[in-house]
Amino acid sequence: MRQPKRFIQQHRPRKNVLIAGATRLLAAMEEGIQLERIYLLTGARGEPIDRLTETAHANGVPVNRVPAEKLKSFNLERPEDCIGVRSRIHYLPLQDVISFIVEKGEAPLLVILDGITDVRNIGAIARSAWSCNAHAIILPEKGVGALQEDAVTTSAGALEHILVSRVRSIPQAIDELHLNGIQVFASDMNAPVKIFDLDFKIPCAIIFGSEDKGVHPTFYKMCDQVFCIPMQNHFESLNVSVAVGMTLYEAMKQRMQG
Amino acid sequence: MRQPKRFIQQHRPRKNVLIAGATRLLAAMEEGIQLERIYLLTGARGEPIDRLTETAHANGVPVNRVPAEKLKSFNLERPEDCIGVRSRIHYLPLQDVISFIVEKGEAPLLVILDGITDVRNIGAIARSAWSCNAHAIILPEKGVGALQEDAVTTSAGALEHILVSRVRSIPQAIDELHLNGIQVFASDMNAPVKIFDLDFKIPCAIIFGSEDKGVHPTFYKMCDQVFCIPMQNHFESLNVSVAVGMTLYEAMKQRMQG
Repeated sequence: MRQPKRFIQQHRPRKNVLIAGATRLLAAMEEGIQLERIYLLTGARGEPIDRLTETAHANGVPVNRVPAEKLKSFNLERPEDCIGVRSRIHYLPLQDVISFIVEKGEAPLLVILDGITDVRNIGAIARSAWSCNAHAIILPEKGVGALQEDAVTTSAGALEHILVSRVRSIPQAIDELHLNGIQVFASDMNAPVKIFDLDFKIPCAIIFGSEDKGVHPTFYKMCDQVFCIPMQNHFESLNVSVAVGMTLYEAMKQRMQG
Repeated sequence: MRQPKRFIQQHRPRKNVLIAGATRLLAAMEEGIQLERIYLLTGARGEPIDRLTETAHANGVPVNRVPAEKLKSFNLERPEDCIGVRSRIHYLPLQDVISFIVEKGEAPLLVILDGITDVRNIGAIARSAWSCNAHAIILPEKGVGALQEDAVTTSAGALEHILVSRVRSIPQAIDELHLNGIQVFASDMNAPVKIFDLDFKIPCAIIFGSEDKGVHPTFYKMCDQVFCIPMQNHFESLNVSVAVGMTLYEAMKQRMQG
């Protein structure tokens, strides 16, 4: 699967480009420039700041309130209250992703990541997803590592090939998936259903949580199936990118063998 | 599978302990203390140094020739020409590992790592191996990252549970495995045989190479089977710990389903 041309930015930024100051950030978002994240000085207030946070929210751009030291670390010529980082990834609306896959006549296979902060893991997951023919990765706005140079490098470029959707919240994404007839599975090491017993050939999305916290309990209730990868030695847990890899391997094998 | 009591050191060192000076290092090896690695000043010569390198070689301890700056970085009170690092892992002879598994009445499932230098990957692989009921990890003396605190931490303790064997060379290990009736498989993304078509229920060891170099070409010739994990998007390669995870998942599934 290649990324559709209409989805590819003509001038994909090759490096993180910083945009400083509320007015310039607002103008950038109005022009349709995608931002990975905005860093805003803790306590900064006033009209342009309020408008900035509102516009960021409407555009699905995470805003992190940070101390002055963090802003200084960007080494700009003059200090600014807010700095935005242009996206390395071209994020797409979830509905566009689903429509694109369905129009191709394929059964969607999607990966949802909940609270994965280590960008090395996200990079490795993108490689597995692309290799195993998963169609897209869905990330929430909050609680995910910023996908900058290091994530793209760790993904060996996969993050630039696979479709990526950034969603306001995971429950909202689950609702949207359900409306499109896509089942949602979640992995949990204590689930009674084994991964072998699931049908990954149907349109489905699989949620993975972080190694320490797992998938958020309220999301489980919204899922159609909760499954485990059986552990032979009652061991704490697998590395999250390995667990995703095993699951996508099972899905790919089922889909290859029809 | 728990590690046999007779294999567990009574006083497993909780931290890396440094042993400095040729005489003390020789005495330590004679006492049976396992060393992860010896760092030796480039150009250091003389009787005790020759005896040290010989004894290290006989005991399977890697010796790295390093500049004075590396030795200074250990921050010892007075400068030394050679510094040894005690092992965090308790290494076992390969034949002992095989005998132990066979005596339990199980078909060995072993993982051989060739040229994996990133200890985070080795840690993640140990977790997968332990979770999927692989019996042991086999590492060559040279070309593998030193398994110190960070490797043990990344493995979430798995490196302290699973059996680990350090071998002089991989060809020698393959010969020893063959003599014990254990088949050797290697992964290569261009192999015509697919992973699904292999029988992992038989006694077997699987070699994995680094992401950039793969398995050394001479080792392939010694292997009984070379297999690929099919890639759907003709993508460069998977993260190595993910590839190992997928393979061990397939092996575990076959062994669970008999």
